Parts: sequence; C-alpha cells; structure tokens
Amino acid sequence: MWYKTKVIEQCRIDYPMIQAGMAGSTTPELVATVSELGGLGTIGAGYMTPAALEQEILKVKARTSKSFSVNLFVPESFSYTDAEVAAMNDFLAPYRQALNLEQPTIGEHDSAAFDTMIDIVVEQHVPICSFTFGIPDEKTINRLKAAGTILIGSATTVEEAKAVEAGGLDAVVAQGSEAGGHRATFIDRQETTSLIGTMVLIPQVVDHVNIPVIAAGGVMDSRGWLASHALGAQGVQMGTAFLTTHERNAKSVHKQVIFNSNETDAIVTHEISGKPARGLHNALIQHLREEGPAVLPYPIQNDLTKQIRAAAGKAGLTKWMHMWSGQGVRLAQDHDAATFFKQLIQNAQSQAEQFNM
Amino acid sequence: MWYKTKVIEQCRIDYPMIQAGMAGSTTPELVATVSELGGLGTIGAGYMTPAALEQEILKVKARTSKSFSVNLFVPESFSYTDAEVAAMNDFLAPYRQALNLEQPTIGEHDSAAFDTMIDIVVEQHVPICSFTFGIPDEKTINRLKAAGTILIGSATTVEEAKAVEAGGLDAVVAQGSEAGGHRATFIDRQETTSLIGTMVLIPQVVDHVNIPVIAAGGVMDSRGWLASHALGAQGVQMGTAFLTTHERNAKSVHKQVIFNSNETDAIVTHEISGKPARGLHNALIQHLREEGPAVLPYPIQNDLTKQIRAAAGKAGLTKWMHMWSGQGVRLAQDHDAATFFKQLIQNAQSQAEQFNM
Repeated sequence: MWYKTKVIEQCRIDYPMIQAGMAGSTTPELVATVSELGGLGTIGAGYMTPAALEQEILKVKARTSKSFSVNLFVPESFSYTDAEVAAMNDFLAPYRQALNLEQPTIGEHDSAAFDTMIDIVVEQHVPICSFTFGIPDEKTINRLKAAGTILIGSATTVEEAKAVEAGGLDAVVAQGSEAGGHRATFIDRQETTSLIGTMVLIPQVVDHVNIPVIAAGGVMDSRGWLASHALGAQGVQMGTAFLTTHERNAKSVHKQVIFNSNETDAIVTHEISGKPARGLHNALIQHLREEGPAVLPYPIQNDLTKQIRAAAGKAGLTKWMHMWSGQGVRLAQDHDAATFFKQLIQNAQSQAEQFNM
Repeated sequence: MWYKTKVIEQCRIDYPMIQAGMAGSTTPELVATVSELGGLGTIGAGYMTPAALEQEILKVKARTSKSFSVNLFVPESFSYTDAEVAAMNDFLAPYRQALNLEQPTIGEHDSAAFDTMIDIVVEQHVPICSFTFGIPDEKTINRLKAAGTILIGSATTVEEAKAVEAGGLDAVVAQGSEAGGHRATFIDRQETTSLIGTMVLIPQVVDHVNIPVIAAGGVMDSRGWLASHALGAQGVQMGTAFLTTHERNAKSVHKQVIFNSNETDAIVTHEISGKPARGLHNALIQHLREEGPAVLPYPIQNDLTKQIRAAAGKAGLTKWMHMWSGQGVRLAQDHDAATFFKQLIQNAQSQAEQFNM
C-alpha cells in the first residue's frame, strides 16, 4: 500500500499524516483526536513555557495512549539595540492606546527554557519531537535519542535537509513555499530564495537524503496527500487544513477570514514576528511594511507585537491580528477534526485505486 | 488509465504531456520529436515574426504529421517615455561597449503582427494554439474556433483561470510559482501575489473551472507528472525539463549553468524583459536590480536588453545572458528528447501501478 512507509514504523502510527505543530493554535483535543485516529497529533510548543508544555502533554496523555509529538522552536542568537525597540514601540503606540495596552516588556530569551523543555520531553517519554528553525546541538540530540525519542527536523531547501540528516535526525519535513505560518528556514535566510514550491522541493530533497521525507506546504486534502507520495514523500504534514477544524485554538474570526480569502491573499511577511511567515494580508502588516521602522529580529519583534495581536483577536479586529495561512485557503473546510481525518483517508484510498483503473 | 484524459481527446495526442512553448528556445526538431512520440510539441512563437512562424510551422510539418501547437504572446497596451529609454540605454552602454553593439532601436509593437500570426495559424491548419499573457479578443477566438483550432489559455491564479474559461478557451494551463521563464500573469500583476505553488494552484483551479486543467511549474519527471494528476490535472506542461535536451535551442552554456545550479538560484526577475520571469540569478540581473534605473514595461525592456543577452550568449558570458529555469534545476537531465520522453512514460506507468500494490 502506498501509505505503508517507514514513517509509520518510526512514529508507530497507522497513517503517515502529521498534524503540524502550529505554535499557539493547537489544543489537546486536536492533538489527541488526530493521534487516536492513527495520524500523528503534534503539540505546537513553539511559544510555550516549560510549565505550559508539561500541562499540555499531560492533557494529551489523558485523552490518548497513542503516539504523539511535540514541536519546539530551536533558539538562536540575535542582537538588537534599545533604540530599535524604542522606535518600534513608538510606531506601535497608537495600537496600544486603541486597545488599552501597556508597553510590553521583552521576554527572557536564553536557551535555559529550551533545555528545560527537552527535560520534560524526556521525562514524559514523548514519543516524537520535531524541530523548527534549526537543529539542536549534538548533546541534546544524543540525550533524546538515548531516551528513545524519534526526532524530526524541518527544511526549506535541499541544503537544510542535508544538514538535518547530518545532524542525526530520523526524518525531515520538507516545507514548500505554499505553507502557512513560519518558514522553517535556518541556513539561507533570504525571504525569496527559500520559497521553493512543494512540487519541486520534495523530489529534490528525496534525491539528496536517505532519511524519510515528509511533505509540507499546500497539502490540504487527499489530492495533496497522494501527490506528495507520488513525488517521493513518505508522509505529509498538514497545518492550515487543521486550522479551520472545530478543535483548533485559532480565533473564529481568523477561520472566517480564511473562508473569505483566496490564494493570493496569503503573503509572506516578517513584520509580525521578525521571521518570515505566510499569513493573510491585513492592515497591520501593510502599515508595518509601508511606514514602520526597521523590523527587529525574532523573537523580539514577536514580543513587541504579540499583545496587540492577542487583544485584537479578542476584540474580533482582524485588521490587527496575525492570521497564518497557507496558499491553499480555498480548500479549507469547516468541520471537526475527526470527520475531516476519516474522510481524508477514505478519499485518499479511493483516489489511489483509480490510478490503475 | 490515469492518463486517458479529455486533453488527449481534445489535442488528438496519446499522452497528456505538453512540451512548453518556450519562446526563443524551441526548435522544429524538439517539437516534432515530442509530437511524434505522442506528446504535444509546441512552437514557442512569442518572439517570432509572422514570416519566421510560417517557416517554423512548415519545418515541423516536414518532420511530423501528428498534432502540434503554437504558443503566442497576447499583445497588450503599455506606455513609456523617451527619458526612461534614454536612462536605461545609458545604464546599459558599458555592456554594449564591451560587446561591440550599437544602441538598439525599439521594435514595432502593434497588434498587426499578432493578427498576421493568427492568419498563419488558420491558413496552416495548426491543430492547437496556446496563449500567454492574456486572452485574445472575441473575434480572434471565434475565428480560430471556426477553423477548428483547439485553444489553450494560461493562468497563474484561480481568477485568471476563470477568465480563460469565460473567454471560451478549451483548456487552461495553470502555471505554478515553480515554473521557469515568464509568469503568464495577466490580471493581478504584483510579482509576489501571483506566485502560487503548483501543489495548491492545481486543486484550487480544478475546483473552480469546468475546462481541463493542465499543470505547469516544477513538473520535471514522472513523479511530478503523476503528482499533477493526483491533484486533479488532466495533463502536464514541461519546459525546463526540455531545455536541457539536445534538441533545444538554449545555449549550451545555459544548460551547463542549469546543471551546476540549485533550487535557490532560480529567482523571479522583471529586470530582463519588463515582465516577471524565473531564471538563474546572474550579474546582469543583480546590477539592474541594485543600481539600474526604472525598468521599462514589456516588451520595451526586452528590446533594450536583448542584443546584449544574445551577444553574451554567443561569447559564452553567462553573467550577461538570461537563463530561464524553473526551481527544479537539480532534476534536469542531459539527454535527447526522445530518450527522455520514452523514459518519462515508462516511469510514470510503473509508478502508477505501485500506488495499488
């Protein structure tokens, strides 16, 4: 069978379909639903504190005994000046005033929190751990491997995929340009050059690494799943498709905007967080892009804009939120995750059968 | 069988595989080889004079009695000032000096030449005619239809595909962001927003039009072909894959640069011709982008740079040529078109069979 790949053995799942670790948008319900049905649910822990991650893992475990995953952002060094922060805060002051927000303090960003998250992954025997924005150091990799954790890296180019393999990880998610949310890019940081379409990224990566390749970016239904396998992928990762499920943690206005958008509305912006990410165009992005001061590096820019986006979300002000989305917006469906997942598998199987008729 | 689609009936071919009408790079040998083997060869007539087109058609007919196609650029209105031309000519003067070239005259760009090309297509009973950069007017469409010509439009968004269908054309090539050469974009002209990846463009277009959809952009081998059909396409169009065949009209240095490049080198530039196109990054693009005056609209910018690029090509100076290429560069093969085509079909069939094993 086309879907009986090495990924299902590695991850101890029934179908090589990973629900993406969308930081800030996953819920224990969503993760457990996907895992219970034989896919791989992922806790999007990118913005979580260690304590929050531990709670989230316990909540998932209370709902399923099946395999699941945690996605972490690999910390990296960055630099900025107080003057740059002040300029951005000045620019954003009218937003804070309109939303009754204080000027934010910048969070602590040392790698200690990441190390504590790794402690938790090990202690909680999390079966799979995936990484975005780079590859953890050798010590961390070895520690997780000794604990039996299966490790999945993320890449947006062949060069990055080769680095993931060289780092000793077990599989690689190849993220095409269509993908919603943050670009996983960590070697070539130019916004445009890492925007390789899934159709060509997958076969090129498959030809250059020996570890299993999981396709991400624009996989929205059984057509994309099957196409990914035709391209040589051994599994898929789907994000935007789960963002509109009832179990997600995305604001319902965000979901409505997805349903009302088209493929050209999902643009790549680094103005929201300091790192390029694909989301639906709105006034906040446009204002920052056209009139804003220099964008600070991730995660500082993220710290400076996040309260505004959160408060705007609560108030239903889509113009000031971040609304991550891939380019497959017209394929988004309004459904619960279980219905969607079951239909996905059924459609994929009957589509596969038709190839030989 | 997965490849027995409406496209093969419409075009009277055996396999729904179109060799793209790469303006300036097709030869009668290439077109006839593809058509003889059951695909659809295309004369890339975008830059041809009516007389050259007629000669080209006769040469193809001398080599095959099978179905073939002509690709035309739909003319559009544009405006520019003499001062803009003078600024660009000043900027390019050192290139002309180095290559012993006179300052160019701007070609005549009225729609009379296009109308004459349509006359030739009708008189010569060309079976299929495809269009880039828009949709011909109703009179032209009706005239071609009355002559029994099958008409194929090009689109880079759902909106454009719907316009192609509304224009009465018989099929639409949906060109994903991975594609090499000119973007076919004709409605939303922003460079970034028409860069929709093939993986999401195909299913979204398929869901919104009733005419057959042909996938283009990153289809380099049987994996891409099969993936396109999984996405709902009824055929594929391949350009870059044929650019490195021995029958192509691409400079052999261009071919060598493709073999030595990777997926991040193929960028979108409008500096060469005045319209966005994907090609391999070089010094000419960089210089125009970083230090050049305002780029003129197509086809004026093309007129101003083309002798430089042609002379550079003859001299083997890749730094000053245009080297169109899709993002699938690592998948390019050094072969003759017949060997490539036969292998493509064989591989696609055996891959399709494996889906059900």
